[in-house]
Amino acid sequence: MSRKIAVVLLSGGLDSATCLAMARSQGYGCYCLSFDYGQRHSAELEAAATVAKHLGAVEHRVVRIDLAQFGGSALTDAAIDVPTTGLGLGIPVTYVPARNTVMLSLALAWAEVLGARDLFIGVNAVDYSGYPDCRPEYIAAFQRMANLATKAGVEGQSLNIHAPLIDLPKSEIIRRGIELGVEYGLTVSCYQADRDGRACGLCDACRLRCEGFAAAGIPDPTRYAGAR
Amino acid sequence: MSRKIAVVLLSGGLDSATCLAMARSQGYGCYCLSFDYGQRHSAELEAAATVAKHLGAVEHRVVRIDLAQFGGSALTDAAIDVPTTGLGLGIPVTYVPARNTVMLSLALAWAEVLGARDLFIGVNAVDYSGYPDCRPEYIAAFQRMANLATKAGVEGQSLNIHAPLIDLPKSEIIRRGIELGVEYGLTVSCYQADRDGRACGLCDACRLRCEGFAAAGIPDPTRYAGAR
Repeated sequence: MSRKIAVVLLSGGLDSATCLAMARSQGYGCYCLSFDYGQRHSAELEAAATVAKHLGAVEHRVVRIDLAQFGGSALTDAAIDVPTTGLGLGIPVTYVPARNTVMLSLALAWAEVLGARDLFIGVNAVDYSGYPDCRPEYIAAFQRMANLATKAGVEGQSLNIHAPLIDLPKSEIIRRGIELGVEYGLTVSCYQADRDGRACGLCDACRLRCEGFAAAGIPDPTRYAGAR
Repeated sequence: MSRKIAVVLLSGGLDSATCLAMARSQGYGCYCLSFDYGQRHSAELEAAATVAKHLGAVEHRVVRIDLAQFGGSALTDAAIDVPTTGLGLGIPVTYVPARNTVMLSLALAWAEVLGARDLFIGVNAVDYSGYPDCRPEYIAAFQRMANLATKAGVEGQSLNIHAPLIDLPKSEIIRRGIELGVEYGLTVSCYQADRDGRACGLCDACRLRCEGFAAAGIPDPTRYAGAR
């Protein structure tokens, strides 16, 4: 294979869009993968498709997996409210059980078929310190497992899980993304965006995003649903 | 929680049925998980439901994931023929990319929601020496990753991936299953069973199963589609 290719997990939010732009800037042909996992709204999947196109992805696929049938998270279980009063301590109710593991596993399956040895995921340990599967030691353990799980590993080619945002503050992620041509107005981070992709401005994801733009000194292009 | 519970991966084949019987014999309340991953036939999913009921599972769920959209295996890609001329060397074309990783990841998600700390998978390194994700070192690496990925791991409770068949020859698996009350006539192992669950008798899975019954000195209850 002459061209280097990567599978990039793309949610449609700010972080994964930046991660895709970084992979592109490193010369990867990018195969983007999104998940319809029973999240509350489809605005972020529409954003993912737009962002993939805007940033020149080779291909964008959406895999449907019904994580909602297991419940256990405010993002997939309509009976659990999304918190809107600010970040708390510990693992938040918006944590989706084993989500990154499930997504990376499916990315791994696609990578094997494509012959890609690089996977990109926009996890961040700064903002999501309460999510166990956003920590560097988790990413390292997944990479080790992936190398034992697959043909590529058996044949001595190493698989690499890239998490280029893992230790960056949100403001720095935004600055780098702007340099790489990300249009953040196309992205949707809100946990409970409306059908038109307008953000609530109150959930943890909105708060982190809004604070990031303020700290970066960059105007926030997010469309908000209500008065703020 | 007073009762010990486990998530058990159940395909409807001989190995996973035995694995479920072993988990039950160890006193676990079993939550069985099957996958509709675009395999060629649905007979094994019907067998999984029957086996789960017969062996007293608490619950049985089927998650649909479209691994076929990635292709790359004779089990999910209609353009690749299932080999019927006997076992070869290396990784067979019936290998489904990252299948065990995807399945264990979803089992992990359900386990987190249930509060289960034990997962059972009927992988076997003897018969499937060509499958990278059937090796003990892979299972150990998945367990390590799972403990870093989840709330349970963060809270210091360990998650255990049990693979009780991993080093057993097929004849021994069958002997133990018979002792534990498994009715193998209910199971379907064939890679290309017909709609009624009748086996081809020629694919690798059929050959290994048939040889296992012969080696165990136990009559083979498999229903075959053609004359043998």
